[in-house]
Amino acid sequence: MIKYILFDIDDTLFPSTEFSTLARKNAINAMISMGLPGDQNAIMAKLTRIIDRKGSNYGGHFDDLCKQLGIKDPARYTAAAVAAYHDTKTAIQPFPKVPLTLLRLKEAGYKLYIATNGDAVKQWDKLIRLRIALYFDGVFVSEELGTEKSVSFYRKVLRRLGARPEECMMVGDREDADIAPARKIGIATVRVLAGKHSRIPTRAHHSLKDISGLIRILQRL
Amino acid sequence: MIKYILFDIDDTLFPSTEFSTLARKNAINAMISMGLPGDQNAIMAKLTRIIDRKGSNYGGHFDDLCKQLGIKDPARYTAAAVAAYHDTKTAIQPFPKVPLTLLRLKEAGYKLYIATNGDAVKQWDKLIRLRIALYFDGVFVSEELGTEKSVSFYRKVLRRLGARPEECMMVGDREDADIAPARKIGIATVRVLAGKHSRIPTRAHHSLKDISGLIRILQRL
Repeated sequence: MIKYILFDIDDTLFPSTEFSTLARKNAINAMISMGLPGDQNAIMAKLTRIIDRKGSNYGGHFDDLCKQLGIKDPARYTAAAVAAYHDTKTAIQPFPKVPLTLLRLKEAGYKLYIATNGDAVKQWDKLIRLRIALYFDGVFVSEELGTEKSVSFYRKVLRRLGARPEECMMVGDREDADIAPARKIGIATVRVLAGKHSRIPTRAHHSLKDISGLIRILQRL
Repeated sequence: MIKYILFDIDDTLFPSTEFSTLARKNAINAMISMGLPGDQNAIMAKLTRIIDRKGSNYGGHFDDLCKQLGIKDPARYTAAAVAAYHDTKTAIQPFPKVPLTLLRLKEAGYKLYIATNGDAVKQWDKLIRLRIALYFDGVFVSEELGTEKSVSFYRKVLRRLGARPEECMMVGDREDADIAPARKIGIATVRVLAGKHSRIPTRAHHSLKDISGLIRILQRL
């Protein structure tokens, strides 16, 4: 019987892909508002290339962009871009049915956990911004467990919970990080089909458009 | 004749002391909302001592606070505190008469500049958040000039502007940084009596409760 449900955050509990795109657009618009010359789409293409190359956790995207654009007084544009980017990122909202579904699962007696890759404070920041932090009985972050989501990550989680695999369910959007390794050690898996990875085929036990379907899946088990 | 007016930012263009106090209070309330045990005032006293000791630009205030409070899982509290702190800091508003006064000064043909201590991107961020960045013809930041506000700072500013001291006016709340060194080299000085330094006596040419009085001072000159 399932007792513990583990959730990924990005593109599982909120539309992370959508907010990232919006944050970049708003950042570029803010630079243009401060007087930056150039075409919005051309600047966006440059920024996208920088992010693809340096990764999304790199801190100097806008500094690099200013350098590429040959800007001599970058502070005003960097400040405008970062402010607009953060304002968008801090305005994140959960997928509409998420808060009520989490509440119903708590009412039904399930223990809810987060299982996420990344930096602990950054991932907690998302839970707080989404106003859903208090629903979770615990948070497992790769930074703290010393390994990215993998068979060894999920084994550590089971050990910390004192749980057997058949008592757990993992819910996430990523086939590689959320589904495959959890499934491999006997955890029930639910794939959420959202965000930029939504078209990758799945071998999960169940797949859903949003997590509200979880309640029916759990009732049927 | 005055042609160039230089402005300090903190406690001159917006109530920086007030927002800092509010930001700290909101941060502590957010930690308590996440389940932190303890008394609000006692925690505030600890935080104030940390900030006094490490300075306001130190990045680890809340990490240190969690350590002092003996918290074993600090990520959730640090994330909550930082989010609330930033939300308050990014909601800064100018003193009520500031935007209209800046516009009137521009209409009257004055060139407006910022003269500020600190980090260039952080100071630009404030101008952008206050929605007043576009009023300024330029920004002089100590980080970029290589010296904090002092006689040598103001000499560099005059050189960059190609201006004589008698063509300039410096407006700020700090006797030591804004008034004394500018006055020493013949710049007209206006002290704004706001924030935590407001009771320090002044030798400025003029003093004001807010910058709206500048227009009358300039008309009389």
